[in-house]
Amino acid sequence: MAETSRPCGVYAAIMKPLTRDFQVDLPLLVAHGRWLLANGCDGLAPLGTTGEANSLSVDQRLRVIDALASAGLPMGRMIIGTGSCALADAVELTRAALAAGCPNVLVLPPFYYKSPSDAGLHAFFAALIDGVNDTRLRVYLYHFPQVSAVPITPALIEMLRASHGPETIAGLKDSSGDWNNTKMLLERFSGFAVFSGTEHYLSQNLAAGGPGCISATTNVTAPIARLVMTAAGPAQAQIQEGLSELRLLIQGFPLIPALKHIKAELSGEPAWRRLLPPLMPLDAAQAEALMAKLRAAREFPRLSETMRLAA
Amino acid sequence: MAETSRPCGVYAAIMKPLTRDFQVDLPLLVAHGRWLLANGCDGLAPLGTTGEANSLSVDQRLRVIDALASAGLPMGRMIIGTGSCALADAVELTRAALAAGCPNVLVLPPFYYKSPSDAGLHAFFAALIDGVNDTRLRVYLYHFPQVSAVPITPALIEMLRASHGPETIAGLKDSSGDWNNTKMLLERFSGFAVFSGTEHYLSQNLAAGGPGCISATTNVTAPIARLVMTAAGPAQAQIQEGLSELRLLIQGFPLIPALKHIKAELSGEPAWRRLLPPLMPLDAAQAEALMAKLRAAREFPRLSETMRLAA
Repeated sequence: MAETSRPCGVYAAIMKPLTRDFQVDLPLLVAHGRWLLANGCDGLAPLGTTGEANSLSVDQRLRVIDALASAGLPMGRMIIGTGSCALADAVELTRAALAAGCPNVLVLPPFYYKSPSDAGLHAFFAALIDGVNDTRLRVYLYHFPQVSAVPITPALIEMLRASHGPETIAGLKDSSGDWNNTKMLLERFSGFAVFSGTEHYLSQNLAAGGPGCISATTNVTAPIARLVMTAAGPAQAQIQEGLSELRLLIQGFPLIPALKHIKAELSGEPAWRRLLPPLMPLDAAQAEALMAKLRAAREFPRLSETMRLAA
Repeated sequence: MAETSRPCGVYAAIMKPLTRDFQVDLPLLVAHGRWLLANGCDGLAPLGTTGEANSLSVDQRLRVIDALASAGLPMGRMIIGTGSCALADAVELTRAALAAGCPNVLVLPPFYYKSPSDAGLHAFFAALIDGVNDTRLRVYLYHFPQVSAVPITPALIEMLRASHGPETIAGLKDSSGDWNNTKMLLERFSGFAVFSGTEHYLSQNLAAGGPGCISATTNVTAPIARLVMTAAGPAQAQIQEGLSELRLLIQGFPLIPALKHIKAELSGEPAWRRLLPPLMPLDAAQAEALMAKLRAAREFPRLSETMRLAA
């Protein structure tokens, strides 16, 4: 994929390894990013929900952007989370992403006040885009109502595309888990890149003309998701089935703790188990149940082999 | 009230006037704080929900704390909001409050991830208190489930009082609007200062041994709330009725926009109408309906007179 083209394919909402004192372990993060890009990901989506971005200060987030860019990772193949309840923070983070070479940002609506009006949300995004004031900017709206509790409605998308143009309002990550919503948005807004928030819908998203997926679980399943991208017909359907088995199995547990546990187990790096509060590591029973189910999954041998090579 | 005693009485969750470019208008804020303290408030609770704190960056919040302290306002009579989804931010803001002479902080739970475990919330508050590491610290937990979507449960309060002591875990602001919850917490936890989040329950809170109220609407109703504090018996009941009429009337509108509109109207300072997105000013019809109802309220003449004097 060319570094300057529009993001598409398999993206991982890259999770953040932590040090003992709750700082991001930047070298381990960069190593994980390199592994993902070498093992199935077309790109990375740092500083999202899985990346525990809202549990990090703006300074901590800026250091993540800087570390990824300084390590020479391909910033054109990233979609960086820059949303915040505070407009001033969202502007600062978005400017930093652009300055680091990444025009694509994934932006949560401000999520503290509940039931904001679409006019109020439009005012926020408009002030963000006008405040950043850079024609390179490509905004991906982040729809994750179960967590943010503030949905991105079709009416809001329409208002934003009308006021700021379909080039700037480039797409959306649909983490609702509702395929019908993704499909409706793809059909309704021409040229609007609606990513599925899960690789469970990867082949469906591609078939419907969507750009692909940005997913938490691809932190682990990227090598299998890659095979869906390169296969076709019945072979693709079969690999999608094995991929979906992995996704559905993992999401039966607290998602981010489960992903970090799997990474720690398969890569042999226990630091991966740390989480920022209020998230907590799996307890022993959960951890055991997760690994037992994972080992029984059809695609586990392929996955395990790839991840061991990374350790 | 002595400056070093425990906070009690009527507190206003002081709202923030804004400049055209979405900065806090610090001189106007200080003037409003002085007016509140001279006209009914025992203390102020800056940087809460009404103060749009989560819509401000940490730097903007630090400047508010600095402005209040530099103006010579009584920092011992404040309870400063220092919560954040990011632990590092909460630590920084809490340290700044202490450094400015305010040991009392009102702390939201981290509110991005929904349905966190009590163990996860305990880990957050424990890391905050241990990180600040100052025996003067007095934490007031902020229970506002309708907005934060993350409640403070009795089990969490119990865990925190056991781990960090009832002196440090000093109290709670109950913004649930549920008097039975306030009453239950006052009865269950000895010496635990449970403020009502509304002056509608002020006399009930005092009668039940509670410390008083920390309220959004006391930004406007403080002079009337004061009369409830100093009256007794049937006279108190009658004033409480007039106070509750005001509160219930205002909360029939979008609360923060309504309060800012009233302040702008009665003080003659139109800058008060500005809000940070996603909050929006009242539309013309709302504004008209609000002022019509307000002017018909029993205590309006007394209120209007006091606020005009402030302009």
